[in-house]
Amino acid sequence: MSKQEIEKKLAQLMDTVPECEGLIAADTNGKVIVGQTIVDMDHAKIAKACVSIVKDSNTLGTDIGKGTLRNTTIELEEGFAVLVGSEKTVLIALAGPDGKASLGLLKRNLISISNL
Amino acid sequence: MSKQEIEKKLAQLMDTVPECEGLIAADTNGKVIVGQTIVDMDHAKIAKACVSIVKDSNTLGTDIGKGTLRNTTIELEEGFAVLVGSEKTVLIALAGPDGKASLGLLKRNLISISNL
Repeated sequence: MSKQEIEKKLAQLMDTVPECEGLIAADTNGKVIVGQTIVDMDHAKIAKACVSIVKDSNTLGTDIGKGTLRNTTIELEEGFAVLVGSEKTVLIALAGPDGKASLGLLKRNLISISNL
Repeated sequence: MSKQEIEKKLAQLMDTVPECEGLIAADTNGKVIVGQTIVDMDHAKIAKACVSIVKDSNTLGTDIGKGTLRNTTIELEEGFAVLVGSEKTVLIALAGPDGKASLGLLKRNLISISNL
C-alpha cells in the first residue's frame, strides 16, 4: 500500500473515532511513514518505542510457541495505545481516558488497514 | 509482598482461570521471582521480553504525556499474554486461543496482586 493510501485511510479513521487522539504508521525499522496527532507530539519517538514493543512481542510469541503478534492494547494512566504489527508496517492509534469504549473499533480498523 | 505470598496468589489464580496456561512474576530487571506454566517454558526468556515491553510502554506513556503503564494485552496468532507492571514487579499471564473471554478476569486479578 502506498503512503497516500495509508494517509487517506488513517485520516478517515481519525474522523470516524472522535476519541482517537493520534494515528501513526511506521515501517518495521521505526521510520515514520505518516503521522497525525491532535496535539504536537514527537512521532519518531513514539514510533521507536512502538516498533520495539512489537519486536519484543514477536520474541515473546516465539518464546511461548504462540506465533507472531496480531495486536496489542496498552493501558496507560491517562489513555491508551493500540498497536497492530504486520511484516512491513506498525500502525499505532492513541486515545485518551475516554477512548476505552472505542478500542475495539480502533483495533478492527487498524487490522483492516494493515491487511490492505 | 514476599515471594511466598506472590506464589500463593498466582497458584490460586491459575486454579480460578482454567484457560490460563502460565503465570510468571519477575522483578523490573527481568529476574524471575516465581513462575508456573502448564508446559515447560523458558521463564527467564519470557520475563526478559515482557520486562522490555513494560519499559518501552512506560517510555511511550511519557512520550505521549499519558503517564506510566497500567497493563497491556498482547494478542498473538495462537494465544494471549497479559502484562501488569508496577514499580517493583512485572506480572505475566499466558493464555491459549480459548482464553479471550478470560482476559479481563486475568487482568483484574493481576492488578489486584500487583497492588498488594
